[in-house]
Amino acid sequence: MRAVDIIQKKKEGRVLFKEEISFLVKGFTHNDIPEYQMSAFLMACCFKPLNFQETLHLTHEMLHSGKTFDFSDIPFKKIDKHSTGGVGDKTSLILAPIVACYDVAIPMISGRGLGHTGGTVDKLESIPGFKMNLTFEEFQDNLKTLHFSMMGQTKDIAPADAKMYALRDVTATVECIPLIAASIMSKKLAEGIDGLVLDVKFGYGAFMQKLKDATELAKWLVKIGESSGKKTIALVTDMNQPLGNKIGNSLEIEETIEVLQGHGPKDLIDLSLTLSGTMLTLGGISRSVKEGVSLSQKAIHNGKALQKFKELLQRQGGDTRVIDSFSYLPSAKYTFEFLAPKAGFLAKINARNIGKGASVLGCGRETLTDAIDPSVGFILHKKVGAKVQKKDILLTIRYNDEKKLAASMVELIQAFEITPKKPSFKPLIQKVLGKL
Amino acid sequence: MRAVDIIQKKKEGRVLFKEEISFLVKGFTHNDIPEYQMSAFLMACCFKPLNFQETLHLTHEMLHSGKTFDFSDIPFKKIDKHSTGGVGDKTSLILAPIVACYDVAIPMISGRGLGHTGGTVDKLESIPGFKMNLTFEEFQDNLKTLHFSMMGQTKDIAPADAKMYALRDVTATVECIPLIAASIMSKKLAEGIDGLVLDVKFGYGAFMQKLKDATELAKWLVKIGESSGKKTIALVTDMNQPLGNKIGNSLEIEETIEVLQGHGPKDLIDLSLTLSGTMLTLGGISRSVKEGVSLSQKAIHNGKALQKFKELLQRQGGDTRVIDSFSYLPSAKYTFEFLAPKAGFLAKINARNIGKGASVLGCGRETLTDAIDPSVGFILHKKVGAKVQKKDILLTIRYNDEKKLAASMVELIQAFEITPKKPSFKPLIQKVLGKL
Repeated sequence: MRAVDIIQKKKEGRVLFKEEISFLVKGFTHNDIPEYQMSAFLMACCFKPLNFQETLHLTHEMLHSGKTFDFSDIPFKKIDKHSTGGVGDKTSLILAPIVACYDVAIPMISGRGLGHTGGTVDKLESIPGFKMNLTFEEFQDNLKTLHFSMMGQTKDIAPADAKMYALRDVTATVECIPLIAASIMSKKLAEGIDGLVLDVKFGYGAFMQKLKDATELAKWLVKIGESSGKKTIALVTDMNQPLGNKIGNSLEIEETIEVLQGHGPKDLIDLSLTLSGTMLTLGGISRSVKEGVSLSQKAIHNGKALQKFKELLQRQGGDTRVIDSFSYLPSAKYTFEFLAPKAGFLAKINARNIGKGASVLGCGRETLTDAIDPSVGFILHKKVGAKVQKKDILLTIRYNDEKKLAASMVELIQAFEITPKKPSFKPLIQKVLGKL
Repeated sequence: MRAVDIIQKKKEGRVLFKEEISFLVKGFTHNDIPEYQMSAFLMACCFKPLNFQETLHLTHEMLHSGKTFDFSDIPFKKIDKHSTGGVGDKTSLILAPIVACYDVAIPMISGRGLGHTGGTVDKLESIPGFKMNLTFEEFQDNLKTLHFSMMGQTKDIAPADAKMYALRDVTATVECIPLIAASIMSKKLAEGIDGLVLDVKFGYGAFMQKLKDATELAKWLVKIGESSGKKTIALVTDMNQPLGNKIGNSLEIEETIEVLQGHGPKDLIDLSLTLSGTMLTLGGISRSVKEGVSLSQKAIHNGKALQKFKELLQRQGGDTRVIDSFSYLPSAKYTFEFLAPKAGFLAKINARNIGKGASVLGCGRETLTDAIDPSVGFILHKKVGAKVQKKDILLTIRYNDEKKLAASMVELIQAFEITPKKPSFKPLIQKVLGKL
């Protein structure tokens, strides 16, 4: 077998055999197939997409390139959640302690953020002392006693995917649904889960702009999950405006705690609880998502979910005082208030501009080695549909550096759209795919 | 400017600026842009082909990545010929000494053969002592006094093309007309020529199988040549069966000498003289191709062309005794006669099978470092259209190694097709493009 022949075959749009995909992935992982052949192959895949069977082979080949977890000695269903990423999305931090109040284990392995804002790892690391680099034993121990654990992506999990993703990132071959689906699922299947809930975002602040594309990706993810013997549900949700009101690493920890305390913005609560309710249903705890949502609300109201979150912080070295006072979280030195330029209705808060604005302020990073400023970010005071008067505060900026503030403002100015007419309401959750 | 953005732009089918093409080619040549980005770009170009302006920019960027010759002190027109490659094609060796009999200079820089059979360089090197690695001064001196010179491709000429071609070869990105056209023309324009005659082949033994594709390539080549201020003519010629009767490195030198002596097969003579006649017309010596062909015939009949060939051998160290006796050329130890399995008319001699058969016999190479056996090859006794009796000798194999003979036979068995009905005649030269 020769890599060049496999590339040629895919270029012609012919279907590859399992053995050919295996040869490519193994060869690439072990440096026998050079990056220039893999990148040519990946570009060919963008024009002649892999079919479902090929994508399934690719997923499993990448999955088995590394370590896979086995939590069969934990007597609960292992259920995880994955989001394709959005601005202000801290649902993982909210739903994990909620679901963990019941007999379900959540082995959550998250990535760091690239582009827009920080990832779950970056948000948790804004808590003083919090440690994401757990050993497998620590992770497993958390799962057993706490029912959930959070750690960062390690080099052991799906290394073929990591190597391939790094190459895709610099060769304009990221945007390709089968490749995206294989990349996501190879990492999630490594977690030794029984079921998976996916939050596939669309809109300005999402990787996929169009509902149609996000729905297509959701279908692929569900089909790969089901074909791999895992119950898989995908929600397709609107990411045109940021989720919740707080954006930025320590600010998102604040909002997480607020929700777990029974406060917080409606859109964030609704989505988090629908996701946790779905997880509880997949985990066999509730008979319907509706019942799962009720159980989730109960875990908030009786304080158990917040207690679980506190225990996570205790176990992973985080300062638990942040729960009672946000003053223990890193805080930016200055604030600046961004005012409405005119009266009317907020028709748009472009999450892409908000995300970029947050990133240049210090919330995100361009490359994986860039440092993040955990203390900076935005607080939104109005969401889409709200009535505003001229000079109303739309957003508070927490910043440390005037130059970064200025760069951030360039994005913010483009983010808001105020119209005379109230915009029509669009539901946050547009679709639910998969069988419960 | 970032390479990834340029790749993305081309992937979306948008037109690149001159500066973007320049950035890519320069960066790649100087190792600032890695091979994996270039190969992804090249694959994108296979699906979203460069337009003419982009291809012209690419050609000139590759041309100026290296040395360009200036022969303005030679008081004749500098005219070269290039073939896209075929089986049994030794026209360069025939036409160069013919044209050199007149006041035209032919600065011929040729490549080594890859795949099928040897290139012009390999054929000439089968002459004992013949030296292809000339200094620029030797090459120029030959041009001035002999009117022609032949040397191998050097690293100085269009190094960007050499580097890019090597990458295309292993990433299934060779078959793409704009890339092929830019590659050919970047090297030819470096020769400091005034005019160029191209022989674009189609058929079983050619890179392009279809007349339509070869015609398309011919159009691009002519347009690039003309847009670069060079008179450019392209012939589109049939390469379904081998050209001439002898295939193999020293055997092709034999047939070259035969034609220059006034013998040789009709198809080879016709094509060589049409090419030389066209070159003489571009060089301002004849007023028409027909007149150029007459002048070419004259140069053969008066012995001047053969004398020119002899002088080339003298100047470049080759054993001139080969002209009077082929016994001074390397000769294979054994012969084997391939017989007609049945009576009828020869309907097909598949040049692809003949080429592969010659290659495995030792005429060609798989990689540039493989050694060639100059002594082996085939002598065709019948061409397409000939009447054959059962057991007529179709082809004589000259070989040194029984295993290679056997491998060669596998191809030969598939090459010949004998039918009861005489096949219709197809002209060798199908099209002529460009303005004289």
